[in-house]
Amino acid sequence: MAPLEEFGRIREWTAGRHSDTSLAAAGVKLGIGDDTAVVSGTSGLEWLLAVDTMVEGVHFRPETMEPEDIGYKALAANISDIAAMGGIPKHALVAISIPPQWDTSLLKRIFDGLYECAERYGVIVVGGDTTSAPESLVISVTIVGQVEAGKAIYRNGARPGHFIFLTGPTGLSAGGLHGMLQSEEHRRLVISPPPKRLISAHRRPNPSVKAGRLLITNGWGASLNDVSDGVSSEAWEIAEASDVKLVLHEASLPLAGELVGYAGQCNIPPLDWVLYGGEDYVLIGTAERKYEASMRETFRAEGIPLFIIGEVEAGSPGVDLEYGSGKRKPLEKRGYNHFPKG
Amino acid sequence: MAPLEEFGRIREWTAGRHSDTSLAAAGVKLGIGDDTAVVSGTSGLEWLLAVDTMVEGVHFRPETMEPEDIGYKALAANISDIAAMGGIPKHALVAISIPPQWDTSLLKRIFDGLYECAERYGVIVVGGDTTSAPESLVISVTIVGQVEAGKAIYRNGARPGHFIFLTGPTGLSAGGLHGMLQSEEHRRLVISPPPKRLISAHRRPNPSVKAGRLLITNGWGASLNDVSDGVSSEAWEIAEASDVKLVLHEASLPLAGELVGYAGQCNIPPLDWVLYGGEDYVLIGTAERKYEASMRETFRAEGIPLFIIGEVEAGSPGVDLEYGSGKRKPLEKRGYNHFPKG
Repeated sequence: MAPLEEFGRIREWTAGRHSDTSLAAAGVKLGIGDDTAVVSGTSGLEWLLAVDTMVEGVHFRPETMEPEDIGYKALAANISDIAAMGGIPKHALVAISIPPQWDTSLLKRIFDGLYECAERYGVIVVGGDTTSAPESLVISVTIVGQVEAGKAIYRNGARPGHFIFLTGPTGLSAGGLHGMLQSEEHRRLVISPPPKRLISAHRRPNPSVKAGRLLITNGWGASLNDVSDGVSSEAWEIAEASDVKLVLHEASLPLAGELVGYAGQCNIPPLDWVLYGGEDYVLIGTAERKYEASMRETFRAEGIPLFIIGEVEAGSPGVDLEYGSGKRKPLEKRGYNHFPKG
Repeated sequence: MAPLEEFGRIREWTAGRHSDTSLAAAGVKLGIGDDTAVVSGTSGLEWLLAVDTMVEGVHFRPETMEPEDIGYKALAANISDIAAMGGIPKHALVAISIPPQWDTSLLKRIFDGLYECAERYGVIVVGGDTTSAPESLVISVTIVGQVEAGKAIYRNGARPGHFIFLTGPTGLSAGGLHGMLQSEEHRRLVISPPPKRLISAHRRPNPSVKAGRLLITNGWGASLNDVSDGVSSEAWEIAEASDVKLVLHEASLPLAGELVGYAGQCNIPPLDWVLYGGEDYVLIGTAERKYEASMRETFRAEGIPLFIIGEVEAGSPGVDLEYGSGKRKPLEKRGYNHFPKG
């Protein structure tokens, strides 16, 4: 059985386990199934909880990530889950399982990177667990965030008539990863290495906390996800959770110049990375059309990118790509795979 | 470098990273270094946060744990950290990394066990992350608990004159593990398999939430740890955090009959398991002498074991074992190792 199917089953087993009564009694407003859980606080606050894991050989290899990058990205990916609810990241717990070949100096570099990210985003590391591992390093970070009660932006809020936005270009991380994995071939084919911006997108992602906060404080965001598994996959999640169709305009998708240049050298259509490349950690969401002008203006003033890339329609859940000609193509639901086999 | 030394270094790197000002600003009353972190809540509550990981080949093997046991124990070990602060476990997040040989039916059994434990302790699983892993299954659980503000029982509260208590016998889990690992040898030597109680202690530990709550609600507990790494190791942690000497009375240490019987068959001194065996998840702590009678009475009425095993003295931090003769022996600080090499 393919891993993705198995993972889907786990979601089934975990989704319906607790009764609505017990969820309510425990103050759980939202359990498994969105970017974070939402738990009732007091004084007008709610807590956001999420966990995200990076595994050696699955999410990183020595040639793709320096130890500092592993620590930085492990926390950044979690902060991004808080951003995807519009929340403020607060506290983190770090569980790390260490195989024998990772010596002290390498471990210290992982923690250096992790704390660099913590400092940048004002996150306090409040706990951790360190264990041995037989072969592969595993780092699992749990994040706790806060959001104004009732304001967290779920992925089920997309409605027909909404426009769809992205808070930055996508595909850069996947392009950077491709470059780092293909270096032998590059040398043979005299392709330049990928631009630093692509490599940095993969190693040091910048979660969109500020953008999420703008959406909350101005009451603009209706549905929201972070792009961890790729634009198509995240749009699909919004479409299915909201029971609507998302139509992305091919001509409106942001294409970073460096990505187009590098993709051209490699003879890869850049849209493959833009739509199916993961780990860019920008936000994708929907909002009412009446907010478009103020959103554009405020994001510009704050220096945060905002791209309007399509609109929401009524219809059975799905994601279409619409070309300039008006022709449409349904997008695949598939997610992102770091190191595809074969 | 030995893993334990490395792990100690990680504690060094993580302990002093955040300034007191930033900890206070983030509402962190207690960061890394006790059973859980303590984070300010409102309405007279504080949040307790902890994470604990189990790794295939390090903490369990096919011959020691059924899949249901793995899930059950992964959560139970975390609940025990909340119990060790006197708190109430509330929410959990589960990160699991799955190698190819763990198929769907085995995974489902892990989650069945985990939810069995969740139900027993009233814990809601609010989030998770599922990833692939190359070789070994890793399950990391984060727990969130609550406690009355200012009441959490730290490990630094032991004072000279306190008595030392245990909320149950120890060594059972280590004895059970020994039995499961030695089955070939048993057959050869015609030793009986370990009693079910020992195996069950290893596979299905019962964290001492009720005992922790009694200590909080009656204001008895001054210092507290759960016995995850063994009595000696936990007593050392209390001694070092509190800057005192703990003296354990050899004759007062609880010896479960099944453990003594099985240890005798194996020619192993039962005290080795009682003092150095881990994962019994009873509580060890200290309290003022004036509370001894009421504690005994209340624990008896509630059907919770309570053993008074020694007292706290002034002196340089350490743990002594005192024999009936009055002779004393310093106990080693060493922790618990599931599968020692060689």
